[in-house]
Amino acid sequence: MHDPEKGLLIVISGPSGVGKGTICRELFNKYDDIIYSVSTTTRKPRPGEVEGKHYFFTTEEEFQKLIAQDAFLEWAQVYGNYYGTPRQYVEEILQAGKDCILEIDIQGALQVKQKMPEGIFIFVVPPSLQELIRRITCRGTEDPSEIEKRMSQVSEEMSHLQDYDYIVVNDEVPSAVEQVRAIIVAERCRSSRMCKLINMEV
Amino acid sequence: MHDPEKGLLIVISGPSGVGKGTICRELFNKYDDIIYSVSTTTRKPRPGEVEGKHYFFTTEEEFQKLIAQDAFLEWAQVYGNYYGTPRQYVEEILQAGKDCILEIDIQGALQVKQKMPEGIFIFVVPPSLQELIRRITCRGTEDPSEIEKRMSQVSEEMSHLQDYDYIVVNDEVPSAVEQVRAIIVAERCRSSRMCKLINMEV
Repeated sequence: MHDPEKGLLIVISGPSGVGKGTICRELFNKYDDIIYSVSTTTRKPRPGEVEGKHYFFTTEEEFQKLIAQDAFLEWAQVYGNYYGTPRQYVEEILQAGKDCILEIDIQGALQVKQKMPEGIFIFVVPPSLQELIRRITCRGTEDPSEIEKRMSQVSEEMSHLQDYDYIVVNDEVPSAVEQVRAIIVAERCRSSRMCKLINMEV
Repeated sequence: MHDPEKGLLIVISGPSGVGKGTICRELFNKYDDIIYSVSTTTRKPRPGEVEGKHYFFTTEEEFQKLIAQDAFLEWAQVYGNYYGTPRQYVEEILQAGKDCILEIDIQGALQVKQKMPEGIFIFVVPPSLQELIRRITCRGTEDPSEIEKRMSQVSEEMSHLQDYDYIVVNDEVPSAVEQVRAIIVAERCRSSRMCKLINMEV
């Protein structure tokens, strides 16, 4: 059960290239009442990147130590570099009563769900998902093994959909941003959350 | 379980005088993708009131027959006139895949919840509720039996809060309208609804 004093953890995920990053940037530009999680990485800082703003930079040795301490809500290795979401950093934001957004891939989101199931999980899907399925199943010209492979990929994506609370179709970015915003505003109005806040005041 | 092909039933309720009507009128003016339920009444039409737009007008005899047929989602007698929400009218809107709003008092909302628990129930509270409680409990000057009576009234209202899915504080009307709108948009994005819609397409 979600502690009503704590902020909301909002996890935005979906297939790569679906536009998660664009949606989050727009949210960030438009609304200043949500905090965006900063990842820890072993990647070297690029020019202009600021410690604690863009990333928490660390060594591979330190990162391995943090994994052993279960200090990440999720972590992954990408092209030889490690990336992780520091659990304590996120916890401190939520304990301060502020809402925190994580933008992560499907595997990362599943890891976070195991550690913080009280989070609000939003899956962003491309507008062409239905069209993609139709094409795969309707076109007779393609190699059957290729169809099968792509169908199983789509089916694998579908199976993850049900682990999420909400699905946002990224048809047009402004509309997708407003849907994510609406989900956050609505979740703040949940009676399970509000009742306790009101009772605490009594 | 909500049938994803059907529209959403949105019930807006709360203490009388809290501003439910104003919120619904603003929603109606601003967004044209929701249908407002029309009540059946035995009250005589006032000048300018149109059958099927403002009310379905009927006789008391006919109204009693409809009660006996369980044709209302909720009904009540107010100052000698009967008012009710016609079940079939609402069902037809939802079956057409359109979202329908009911604006009703607390007793009516509880009746609707028994008949259509899949609805989305929103309770509008005045901004002064917490302040009211604080006053009742902190002031020492008032008659103890009066304090008790008012506390039990507030407590009775509190107990209803938990039957609702969402609580909207009507502090400023535009903000309350946007919160109700956000709840509707968010509910449309629920994965339990969207997954089935997507699967139906496959």
